[in-house]
Amino acid sequence: MTQFMDVHRGMVGITPEQFMEAHRADEAIEAEEGVHFQHAWADPESGTVYCLSEGPSAEAVLRIHERAGHPAQEIHPLPIST
Amino acid sequence: MTQFMDVHRGMVGITPEQFMEAHRADEAIEAEEGVHFQHAWADPESGTVYCLSEGPSAEAVLRIHERAGHPAQEIHPLPIST
Repeated sequence: MTQFMDVHRGMVGITPEQFMEAHRADEAIEAEEGVHFQHAWADPESGTVYCLSEGPSAEAVLRIHERAGHPAQEIHPLPIST
Repeated sequence: MTQFMDVHRGMVGITPEQFMEAHRADEAIEAEEGVHFQHAWADPESGTVYCLSEGPSAEAVLRIHERAGHPAQEIHPLPIST
């Protein structure tokens, strides 16, 4: 499996409740694409949200976010990590 | 302590050895600013590197990266996370 970091940029003012709701929406359908969202972090001031996942492809990760109603604007495979 | 994600964008073709060398350079001086780099991930193809840290301020994190020879181009506090 490959690890990915994807970035959402339009979530200015996201609340902890909205954040968890979005994360649960991903988790509810992630297995359908063999994806697992490991961690997510949010900066409500800039509206930036980072999601760390593993999955079969970047497209599979993007499809889950799209279907859950919050498409990502950027994604990178992460073949190297600490 | 606050958690931060910082982003380096100019590291196209970074190797696992260069990545670990850069990470060790951060770790060697991080305590001087009360910073701790928790995880880092790299995509050598796009040259994008993500670093997750905790510290007293974004400026402290940026100073460590600067002094270690690899300034970051973006940084966000992460008050919300899974």
